[in-house]
Formats: sequence, structure tokens, C-alpha cells
Amino acid sequence: MRLSRFYLPVLKETPADAQIASHRLMLRAGMIRQEGAGIYAWLPLGFRVLKKIEQIVREEQDRAHAVEMLMPTIQSADLWRESGRYDAYGKEMLRITDRADREMLYGPTNEEMITEIFRAGVRSYKDLPKMLYHIQWKFRDEIRPRFGIMRGREFLMKDCYSFDIDEESARNSYNKMFVAYLRTFARMGLKSIPMRADTGPIGGDLSHEFIVLADTGESAVFCDKGLVDMDVPAKTTDFDGDLQPVIDQFTSLYAATDEMHDEKEFETKVASENRISARGIEVGHIFFFGEKYSAPMKAVVAGPDGGDINVQMGSYGVGVSRLLGAIIEAYHDEAGCKWPMPVAPFHVGIVNLRVGDEACDAACAKLYADLESAGVDVLYDDIAARPGEKFARMDLIGLPYQITIGPRGLGAGEAEVKDRHTGEKSNVALDGVAGEIAAKVKAALDYA
Amino acid sequence: MRLSRFYLPVLKETPADAQIASHRLMLRAGMIRQEGAGIYAWLPLGFRVLKKIEQIVREEQDRAHAVEMLMPTIQSADLWRESGRYDAYGKEMLRITDRADREMLYGPTNEEMITEIFRAGVRSYKDLPKMLYHIQWKFRDEIRPRFGIMRGREFLMKDCYSFDIDEESARNSYNKMFVAYLRTFARMGLKSIPMRADTGPIGGDLSHEFIVLADTGESAVFCDKGLVDMDVPAKTTDFDGDLQPVIDQFTSLYAATDEMHDEKEFETKVASENRISARGIEVGHIFFFGEKYSAPMKAVVAGPDGGDINVQMGSYGVGVSRLLGAIIEAYHDEAGCKWPMPVAPFHVGIVNLRVGDEACDAACAKLYADLESAGVDVLYDDIAARPGEKFARMDLIGLPYQITIGPRGLGAGEAEVKDRHTGEKSNVALDGVAGEIAAKVKAALDYA
Repeated sequence: MRLSRFYLPVLKETPADAQIASHRLMLRAGMIRQEGAGIYAWLPLGFRVLKKIEQIVREEQDRAHAVEMLMPTIQSADLWRESGRYDAYGKEMLRITDRADREMLYGPTNEEMITEIFRAGVRSYKDLPKMLYHIQWKFRDEIRPRFGIMRGREFLMKDCYSFDIDEESARNSYNKMFVAYLRTFARMGLKSIPMRADTGPIGGDLSHEFIVLADTGESAVFCDKGLVDMDVPAKTTDFDGDLQPVIDQFTSLYAATDEMHDEKEFETKVASENRISARGIEVGHIFFFGEKYSAPMKAVVAGPDGGDINVQMGSYGVGVSRLLGAIIEAYHDEAGCKWPMPVAPFHVGIVNLRVGDEACDAACAKLYADLESAGVDVLYDDIAARPGEKFARMDLIGLPYQITIGPRGLGAGEAEVKDRHTGEKSNVALDGVAGEIAAKVKAALDYA
Repeated sequence: MRLSRFYLPVLKETPADAQIASHRLMLRAGMIRQEGAGIYAWLPLGFRVLKKIEQIVREEQDRAHAVEMLMPTIQSADLWRESGRYDAYGKEMLRITDRADREMLYGPTNEEMITEIFRAGVRSYKDLPKMLYHIQWKFRDEIRPRFGIMRGREFLMKDCYSFDIDEESARNSYNKMFVAYLRTFARMGLKSIPMRADTGPIGGDLSHEFIVLADTGESAVFCDKGLVDMDVPAKTTDFDGDLQPVIDQFTSLYAATDEMHDEKEFETKVASENRISARGIEVGHIFFFGEKYSAPMKAVVAGPDGGDINVQMGSYGVGVSRLLGAIIEAYHDEAGCKWPMPVAPFHVGIVNLRVGDEACDAACAKLYADLESAGVDVLYDDIAARPGEKFARMDLIGLPYQITIGPRGLGAGEAEVKDRHTGEKSNVALDGVAGEIAAKVKAALDYA
């Protein structure tokens, strides 16, 4: 992408009302623009990160054998009356009346709708288990939206729903999502810790939140340090196999959010030097809730003996848009973002120090073409500006590698390469730089 | 994808209220489910087609140098008051009040919001031209939603917006989208015809609709047969070059929708044997509307002499979800859908005629693995059922190739391959079938 074609409205000043680093940096780097309280437009740079996060979430859902679909944003009130949640949900539900005076709402979650879809199409226990997910915009009319996209009102969520014939099978579905979540967040460079959690208005009796530790997190959390060091399951994990040992390993050590915390148990189970008492960002939440929806909504299948059986359900959410904030909280410095390769909006930035200079333009154009044809995502800064402005902008948007070409280096047949994560700079022969950087990008992506 | 894991609730009966083929087939093939008037859930099979269409739209927008972003679905009423459209838009606008009594709406289109975003970030004529697009759900509260997703209320649209310094440059942007649209629809197997069109409530003085001819279309259209036979611009088209000759070629022959139709001109310009008077489906619409929004909303840039200049704008829409219907209208028979390869939900279906038979299961599993590792999207019917039911289901969902494996063929070392488009069946040696079909799939995709 040529910067001259892109739309990257970076801000020089730090927005006054942005309290946390991710909110400040997303505004400064021209990633988002506020369009209302808790409502944001995703400008091209932010959109690219959002899409990469979404794709990682999708790949790991698919790997766990969940099947993708898409439910609409607008739902009918009657559907929510079936479960009894229409009145119970309160003011966070955005209620809407259409021109024919039908009562509708902007979906804050989809348990009711997926249950309705399931019961319409599945008849027999032989069709189970089923796991269906979608990645769709939700709306929750928060009384106090804050921290940018971390607690917005319109937000992108992946929600998966499982349908099983009995509790044992439902536990298998739960375990698949548990492992998928560990892998999902790890691929983005995040260390997530599954914590026993309160089930809240969704209901049910088995639930884990996946928490990323961050000082600016909204939740107080308590856990054993051992969890931070635990390895996540590999890409080769067999999701048809028994995943219980993985779950047992991750739930063997103490970890709980504020609501579930038991200080005495914490002190008994965890040696004082291993006790982490910190703040965290909730990036995922999984629930098993049995017949909570299937019973009132009559989502039944014929069992082996022909009788109707209420299906056992679970739901599994990932805050896709919120993850951008969580990643920035984990990867930034004073100068800007420092994207992990798998979610970087571009892998590499090219800085042309003398736009209009024939040799510089030609060298940059060739490097740009070579990297792109090697499958590298490149942002080529082809805009005439002072070097200081160009470098500050590149540091702010935080691409993993920056390659600078100017008249002086060109004279020596060299480009300067900067690693945004380490800050290290090195001069690399011009004719080898595309190959070297493409190999590094590929290695970083393959690793994830 | 194994059918046993997938969710494919096909219907045996034809739904009574579905009046056109695409609506009937999308319901029967388990592609969509109605969740309210003009509101549909995209079940896994329909979702896969939707994603493939969206991706083709995206690739052609990117090729034309438009830059992707994403605007929220919920907009503020105040933004629409700036352009004067809040009151003018009428009852098709879904108006919403939040818990703080703020007036909002579910966006039916995005001219106002993109103009606000542009004016906040672009200062100088040097930053022009810009073309920004997004693919996002819209809501129009149609009084009579009908024909399934063809005229739904919640629908997926690609809308692109161009910003230029003067009319000549704006015409270049318009031309880029004109060519991108020809290519977009052609890649899906659709012959689209650009027609002079009324500009309607969006305003402006240059506009073309892209129409696919279909008996069930809502628009009456009139055109020269020569347009149907015209070749679309190639993949190698230089979008930085002069595209006017292409536009001149496509606008040289008579083509107009009902609103713009001039019967006398039609009879004068077109020989009687070349006159097509038909019905069509609008799949795209492009507008140049100059300063209609930039003037009232003060979207200005500093010109070369420092003075403020209102930018010249255009907007360019593709009905992404509607395209599914248009494609089915063009490609189906009594038995079901017949997907063109580039938008097929899966490229190939495997029918295991004797599930549970060790040899059949093993042969199917190997074929499935071989095709998938060759990059082919496969639906493997691994569900025990009568052959007639299996074949009917495969024909209904309309994958381009069906490969059937049963005990008899297996004895002869053969699989049966059926081409869904031609209906031709042939026996192919089992050890060569994966390679042969993978090559055919690849050839069909490369061609598009």
C-alpha cells in the first residue's frame, strides 16, 4: 500500500479524554474515529488489525470443528420473551420499534436466536454434537462507555454455541473451546489466563473467563504465577481426542476473578512468592449452562429410545474488537504501537527519505514490489515530508520492521533496517534486504 | 467439511410464500433462515457463498486502489441533520433512541459519515484523490420486504466513496469503479449491463446502475444486445491509466432503466433485432454527485493557492447479499442451485454411498484428505442415508462437482464424477480422481 493512497490521519496531540494507552494510541495513530458515545469507525489502519485478529479467531474456531454462520444484528423481541430475558436484560439492551410498530432489538448476544435456529433444523440425537459460531457486531447500551473500543457500545464479538445430548458430551465441547481460546490469544502474542468466573445474566454453572494481565484492566484478578509460564497446546492438538488433561493442567493452579476470589484458598494453595494479585482485561468467556435455554424454548431432539431430550448447551465469546486494545496495552512504548507480526496492520514499512529523487524513488519502488511479491504486507511512505515526521509516524503506527532508503545509504548500496520491537538498527545491502526481511516475516508468521 | 459436523437443514417441501427461484432454493438448501420481516440468518452454506462474493468484491475494489475501512452500523441523527437528509429520508430510516435519549439511526448508507471522517483528516489538495470503502450491514425499513434476501431490510452492502479536487479527477474515480464493477460481476459468472439511471434521493448528475438480466428482476430495462456480448476489461487493466475508452465503449450502445428510458431514442439507435426489452436485477449503482455533501458539511481542502475548495464526491454501491439471489436466478434448474466455481460454497461434494462400510469409508476419507490438501473446498457427505436422498441433497446445494463412491464402483477401482452444470457423469479411476478434479477446480478459479 502506498501511503499517498492510504488514509492515515495521525494526530500530533494526545487526545485529552483518552485515559489509557490503547485508546490514546488508536486515536493518535489514526486507527479509529469516534462517531458517537462508545461507537467507532475503524479507519484503514485499525481495520487491517481487526481483520487479522478476526481471521486468527476464525482459524482456531474452525480447527476446533466449530462451523461458521452469521446471524443478523436486529432480533425480534418475541424471541427474547421465550427465554424470559426480554424484560430481565434491562437498559443495556437497545430496544427498537420499526415502522410497523414491531418490537425489535439490536442483539447484545445470541443464545435465543441460535436456539431457535437449532430447534428448527435438528431432530435427532444422531445429528449431535453441533458447534456453530458467528463473528458479528453487537450493541450493549452501556451507561458509561469508556476506554475507547475496550468498552464500547457497538463492538465485534465472536460467539459460539454448542449443542450436545448429555453433560459428558457438552463437557467435550466446552473443552474444545477452552483449548481453542488458549491458542487464539497466544497466536496474537497474548498470555491469557483462564479463571473461574461468575456466570452472570447468561446463567449456568461452569464458566471460565480468559484474562490478559494489564495494569489498565477493569477486573481485579488473583492467580498462581505458574499459569503465566504454562505452554499453550500445539497446532497439532487433536480436537477429537481427550482434551481433559489440558484443562486439568490449566485449572490445577489457583486463578479467579474478583467475584469468585477466595483469599483463604489463595493463601493456602499458592506460595506467597507465586501469588499474583493484579488487574486484567477479559478477552474471552466460556459458559456451560445446560438446559437454561433449551428447556423454555423447547430445543429438543429425539433420543435413542424416541423420547424428547432437552439439548445441553454452552456459549463461548471472544471480544474481537476489544482484543486490539488488549494487544496495544501489552505491546507499546512512548513512541507508539509495537505490533506482534501476526496482527500487524502491515509487516514492513518503507521510508523514502527523498521523495522525488529519481534514485530513491526507483530503489523504493523495487523494494516495495519485491516484498509484495514475496507475500509481505508493506506500507510504502511515498509522501514528501521531513525525516523526523516520517520516522515519528512509522514509530507511532508500530510496524515490526522499518526499512529506510535515502540518498546517503543509497550511495553505499545500503538500506537501514529498524526492528520496532528491539529498537535495533542495522545497515543491510540493498540487493539482499527484501529477501532477508521477507524471511524474517515468514518465520514470525509460521511460528504463530 | 464433514456433513456430520456441518449444519445443513434442507427442506423437502417448497416454502409456500417464496415467490422466486432464488428465495425458494435458499430456503430449501438451508442457506438462510428468516428471523423477522426482511431479516435473515445466514446458515453455514449460505454464509460460505456470502463470504466468497464479499471477497471478490474486496479484491476488485483493492485492484481499483480503493482502501478498505469499516464504519459502524449505528449513526447519530445530528450527522444526518448536517446534510438535511434526517427529515428527508422518510420512514425507510430505522430511527432509534438510546437510554440517554440520544437520537440515532441504523445506517441505510454512509455519505454523511464518510464526509465527516474525510473532513476531519484531510487538509490539502495534495492528499487527493482518496477512495474509501467498507462492506457493512445496512438497514432500510422497507414497507414490503420481499423475495428473500433480494429485498431484505438488513442487507450487506459494499459502499465506496471518492474525494477529488475537481470534476475531471472525479471522473477518473468514477471510471475506476465502473471498470471494477464490470470485473466484479463477471468474476461471479454474471453478465452485468451498465445503464444510465436516475439518481434518486442520493442526488447528483451522473449515475449508472449495473443490471443483471433476469425474468424475476424488479426493474424493467431496455438495451442493445451488443452490450450482452461485450468483453469485460482484463485482470491486467491499469487502473492508473486512462479508462475512458472502456467507459465509452460500454456507454456507446443504448441501455436504460425504466425511469430513464426514451422509447424513441431506443428505436432510432437500436436495430429492431438487437432491442432487448427485459427485466433485470440491480446489483450495483454508481453516482457522481459533486458538492452535494461537501458543501453543506464543509468538506474542504486547501487548494494550490491556499483557498478552500469543496471536494467533488461520488459513491459506489454493490448489493453484496443481493448478489447471492442474482447468481441463483442465473444458475439453477428444477433440482437446485448450480454454483459457478468462484462463488460455490464448496467446490466438490463427496458422496459416500455406504457409510459404515470399511472400504467405502477409507476410500472417501483418502479422497477427502487429498482434495483438501490440494486446496479444494470439499463437503464430504458422511451421513448414513438412502442414495436417493443423498443425490437429491447434493443436487439441491449445487456444488460444481460431485464424486460418488460406493461398493460397486470401488470393486472396479472407480469413482463416479458428476458435473452439476452439464449433468454429465463419468467413471474415473480412483487413484486419479483427486488430481483430475483438483486441476479442473483450479482451472475454473484461475479463469475467473
